Amino acid sequence: MEKVKVAVLGATGYSALELLKLLLRHPHVEITTLTSRQEERPHIAEIHPSLTGRLDLQCEPLEPVQLVDRAEVVFGCLPHGVTSQVVPELLDRGVKFIDFSADYRLHDPEVFATWYGQKHGDPDRLKEAVYGLPELFRSAIPSARLIANPGCYPTTATLPLAPLVKAKLIEPGTIIVDAKSGVSGAGRALKLNTLFCEANEGLSAYNIGKHRHTPEMEQILLDAGEQQMEIIFTPHLIPMDRGILATSYSTPASGVTEQDLLQCLKDFYQDEPFMEVVDHLPSTKEVAHTNRCHMTTRLVRGKVLTISVLDNLIKGAAGAAVQNFNLLCNFEETTALF
Amino acid sequence: MEKVKVAVLGATGYSALELLKLLLRHPHVEITTLTSRQEERPHIAEIHPSLTGRLDLQCEPLEPVQLVDRAEVVFGCLPHGVTSQVVPELLDRGVKFIDFSADYRLHDPEVFATWYGQKHGDPDRLKEAVYGLPELFRSAIPSARLIANPGCYPTTATLPLAPLVKAKLIEPGTIIVDAKSGVSGAGRALKLNTLFCEANEGLSAYNIGKHRHTPEMEQILLDAGEQQMEIIFTPHLIPMDRGILATSYSTPASGVTEQDLLQCLKDFYQDEPFMEVVDHLPSTKEVAHTNRCHMTTRLVRGKVLTISVLDNLIKGAAGAAVQNFNLLCNFEETTALF
Amino acid sequence: MEKVKVAVLGATGYSALELLKLLLRHPHVEITTLTSRQEERPHIAEIHPSLTGRLDLQCEPLEPVQLVDRAEVVFGCLPHGVTSQVVPELLDRGVKFIDFSADYRLHDPEVFATWYGQKHGDPDRLKEAVYGLPELFRSAIPSARLIANPGCYPTTATLPLAPLVKAKLIEPGTIIVDAKSGVSGAGRALKLNTLFCEANEGLSAYNIGKHRHTPEMEQILLDAGEQQMEIIFTPHLIPMDRGILATSYSTPASGVTEQDLLQCLKDFYQDEPFMEVVDHLPSTKEVAHTNRCHMTTRLVRGKVLTISVLDNLIKGAAGAAVQNFNLLCNFEETTALF
Amino acid sequence: MEKVKVAVLGATGYSALELLKLLLRHPHVEITTLTSRQEERPHIAEIHPSLTGRLDLQCEPLEPVQLVDRAEVVFGCLPHGVTSQVVPELLDRGVKFIDFSADYRLHDPEVFATWYGQKHGDPDRLKEAVYGLPELFRSAIPSARLIANPGCYPTTATLPLAPLVKAKLIEPGTIIVDAKSGVSGAGRALKLNTLFCEANEGLSAYNIGKHRHTPEMEQILLDAGEQQMEIIFTPHLIPMDRGILATSYSTPASGVTEQDLLQCLKDFYQDEPFMEVVDHLPSTKEVAHTNRCHMTTRLVRGKVLTISVLDNLIKGAAGAAVQNFNLLCNFEETTALF
Repeated sequence: MEKVKVAVLGATGYSALELLKLLLRHPHVEITTLTSRQEERPHIAEIHPSLTGRLDLQCEPLEPVQLVDRAEVVFGCLPHGVTSQVVPELLDRGVKFIDFSADYRLHDPEVFATWYGQKHGDPDRLKEAVYGLPELFRSAIPSARLIANPGCYPTTATLPLAPLVKAKLIEPGTIIVDAKSGVSGAGRALKLNTLFCEANEGLSAYNIGKHRHTPEMEQILLDAGEQQMEIIFTPHLIPMDRGILATSYSTPASGVTEQDLLQCLKDFYQDEPFMEVVDHLPSTKEVAHTNRCHMTTRLVRGKVLTISVLDNLIKGAAGAAVQNFNLLCNFEETTALF
Repeated sequence: MEKVKVAVLGATGYSALELLKLLLRHPHVEITTLTSRQEERPHIAEIHPSLTGRLDLQCEPLEPVQLVDRAEVVFGCLPHGVTSQVVPELLDRGVKFIDFSADYRLHDPEVFATWYGQKHGDPDRLKEAVYGLPELFRSAIPSARLIANPGCYPTTATLPLAPLVKAKLIEPGTIIVDAKSGVSGAGRALKLNTLFCEANEGLSAYNIGKHRHTPEMEQILLDAGEQQMEIIFTPHLIPMDRGILATSYSTPASGVTEQDLLQCLKDFYQDEPFMEVVDHLPSTKEVAHTNRCHMTTRLVRGKVLTISVLDNLIKGAAGAAVQNFNLLCNFEETTALF
Repeated sequence: MEKVKVAVLGATGYSALELLKLLLRHPHVEITTLTSRQEERPHIAEIHPSLTGRLDLQCEPLEPVQLVDRAEVVFGCLPHGVTSQVVPELLDRGVKFIDFSADYRLHDPEVFATWYGQKHGDPDRLKEAVYGLPELFRSAIPSARLIANPGCYPTTATLPLAPLVKAKLIEPGTIIVDAKSGVSGAGRALKLNTLFCEANEGLSAYNIGKHRHTPEMEQILLDAGEQQMEIIFTPHLIPMDRGILATSYSTPASGVTEQDLLQCLKDFYQDEPFMEVVDHLPSTKEVAHTNRCHMTTRLVRGKVLTISVLDNLIKGAAGAAVQNFNLLCNFEETTALF
Repeated sequence: MEKVKVAVLGATGYSALELLKLLLRHPHVEITTLTSRQEERPHIAEIHPSLTGRLDLQCEPLEPVQLVDRAEVVFGCLPHGVTSQVVPELLDRGVKFIDFSADYRLHDPEVFATWYGQKHGDPDRLKEAVYGLPELFRSAIPSARLIANPGCYPTTATLPLAPLVKAKLIEPGTIIVDAKSGVSGAGRALKLNTLFCEANEGLSAYNIGKHRHTPEMEQILLDAGEQQMEIIFTPHLIPMDRGILATSYSTPASGVTEQDLLQCLKDFYQDEPFMEVVDHLPSTKEVAHTNRCHMTTRLVRGKVLTISVLDNLIKGAAGAAVQNFNLLCNFEETTALF
């Protein structure tokens, strides 16, 4: 079978590494091109020693136009703000784009400007971009040209919340999301708080009330459930490599039982290959290195709790991207993801 | 100066080890006796290699009556339910008791029975027991015979909440406490979920809606603030040795600002040697291996958040016990704790 | 294509979990049967929550004879000493066996008795058993009935040493192997030293001069290089889940250069799909969750050093077993292993 | 009692933090001055949040001459090469200096130049500097003006080796030191390999044959034992905060038994307050956060093994410095160190 040629922009980070590993397992993919801004064109194995002997490519400092003949689908692992500078040129030349950054996730450029502190660089394409969370918005993905891969926290928190909102088992109003993430979510840039001796044996909250994934969660719940919900989102940094656990607190609709909540989730996700509604309290460890999300729900003293776990680098980033890629290219959705 | 003779019952666990290390630093303490149920009377350095060359005692399987001549103050690190079997005999013979277990923390034997699933073994002495959280209830400690050392989660969560409740800056009603603890909080017993390969790189909630520290928190807030508050308490297990972080969510009283909240805490704790109200978001790491609690508060979208951190084995257990001991014996409260 | 029916004996440990995950990816395998000694026949997802929704089998307390119709190949993850009680009956009935235990690794029952402290239960079959380290002894594997999957330390240490011994670049004599392993190597049994709070932030040597992998390493070097080498083996326990790094020290043959050593390894392994001779100093992290071994060598002040890393649960256990299975069944050797 | 005024140069790193914590416990110390190169004069609690409320000083970008009136003893936590630029001016003005850097550890400026790749900036004072390892070289410390605090690896490795060398229980010749260190040994600078997601769950050797602590170990053994020993030193980075374990391999003198080796160490260290010769295989965890070194020895297949553990930031840095300070100022040697 013909292989799809793909390029990965910004191949030096942790999500890109996971993406490359998944793509190397994919029977219908040929990785042709990697980019980074480094002039010295390092071999990818110098950047990621785990790829030694597995992928023989250098990271090149390329312009978008140079990618056109090399890739039918481009995966973008570029920083926020940079992505929207390269996307227009690629789309115009017929290249499809799956974006790990936040540039095309929010529908409203005003909301982007408020939370990201900068004017959006390509507001016109926001309408066209498809939010790539297949379990909630699968139908739009196959025909997309531009897929915004979801943020890791929004995926984790809204996968259990959206069905409950949609089924009106949760009252509109404030939802509290208390989320906990491994350190890889903070990326591979050199920052004091992600040094081993700062993060290890330490635990702290960060960006309270200001985290940019907040409006993304609200948008998902609105799109999925036609209800405006305001979210208080408190992320915490946990001394582990990978994994997110989101604990949410919300108010049940009148008369709702714990069984109603569990059944709603089980019904909603019964045919989904990567979703598992479990009875136990799931650990991030049980989904690490997979594209799966395990979730459950409880009713405690008049509040609905949801608990969901996933691997922030896989289902929260690279695995979701490959899932979107499979839908986009009409491959089996689970290809390279089991 | 004359030294106070002390015994430690159940010297084999993690809290007992921290207690012994603190007591070895204490200029006015002589550790005379250690107990454990093991017949072979192991040397304490076999149990805790870190005490090699520092404490030359065997762990003896003693009855309470055998302790009377050996100790003026006994520290009990026994399991719940066992403690109330040894306390009466000791108190009757004039020995004072500082208890790490939960047996004498709750005022009401019915509440104990509900949450601990067993009838209380010594209900009459519950009235006499003093809850040993000096920052909130210092005055009762010096004259006590029986001090119930607080649970680690209740200390962490209520230290920032109690002043806000007392000052009526928080509305009566439901408080959510989403807490995260290092693995040492689960003790040294052999259990699957505390094996390294289960806990490391994993993160999960546990005991949702059922954790026994829930009524203890409610009792503290009632005692401190004369207000009944219902608490939803969700503990999580974090892959680190020690440290607790509690994030709480509650409803502010009308018109309360973030500045009001911060100022309330700063005023309340300004003379406390171990309390620090900070402006940054504190990490458990900054208080590890100390008797200190760092806390802060935020007002986010109409909810009051408090964040507090401490070392579960020190301020959450052994350090608090030594602080209580100092008050009980009229030593400087900070002795051996800096 | 017809699938090969397999059973896994002793499915509750960490190696068995990794094996099951690999087998679930294998296109030519049907897992029909899992066993454990537990009477209550737990579902495998209760034992390994990561298998929830992926494998719907209970662990049954079966006798070997009950397996005969259910499996063509049996993977044994049983304790040492137990394996040799079930193997004869299975082999006699035409079932092939891939053994994770040490029971059939050593050729000489006397050596087994010396190091394992018990008489071998099935000495006659030691001659027949094939040592399943394909990179050194591939040719014997396809026709085997009984494959002894190698120990994790022997695999790590001898993969770089064997080619050097074979090429006579190292002098016969004492080799020092200073090895470091993640905690999963110690298994899932409840033991004090593998509790999180014992192992985390701790590092120690264990079993000095007594580790049972010592004669296994010596046997590999003798078989591969026709030279008797005595090994001093010092294992250390490292606070991480998985991964082994072995550092060895030996005496070079006269005139040997660092380049000779590196070239020898590169030549020897150039066609091996899972072996990578690297120039940098490899980290266990770069091979974690893979079936790969990265190795290098240095000449320092008259000593040859080799450094090799692999994932103890994959290339050191379950991955090697699947590699052997592929060879045994005439599948592509790398099936399910990329 | 009058307090000794001290300054800490380069107060932003991990060793400096541990030093400050120890000095805050010291009854005879007043910390008057902290320096760092940052123009904005950050408060020390911004740099080290654990010092919030405990030390109210800013880090000032001072010249040596400005320290003269402020400090009788200066602790230098400056980088190698920088220290020798500030020491002369301080010594000339009567200030004593305890140096954490390597600038004054080696007697021979040629050896310094070879291993540190730069000409020594103050070769004349190398003769005067005293190597501050009290257990081996105590007598010279009280009268010193300039104390070179030992490197963490040399302290760990040579504490068990030096008595054996001195007693001629080990043959002159090559010693192999295979050492393993927690990540704090690499300092607080922003480097890729000390990011949490690089170091956690990873294990690697580094600087093989080139580590600058090699000649320091050789010098200690020569000074202590009057024997030239060549050392092969292989350091490894371990995913934990703190702790070093050194495993050494050497050749016993003729007829030496394991008991001889153990007894030699026990005799040598019997009166040392921080040294413990143990029979078990010690873990770094048992000495973490202390100034203690636990060590043992074994005789395996004709090689002497020593195993020693300590906390690299305490006995390997800040604790040793305070121990030297106590000797220098004629305080009880263990002050602030229990």
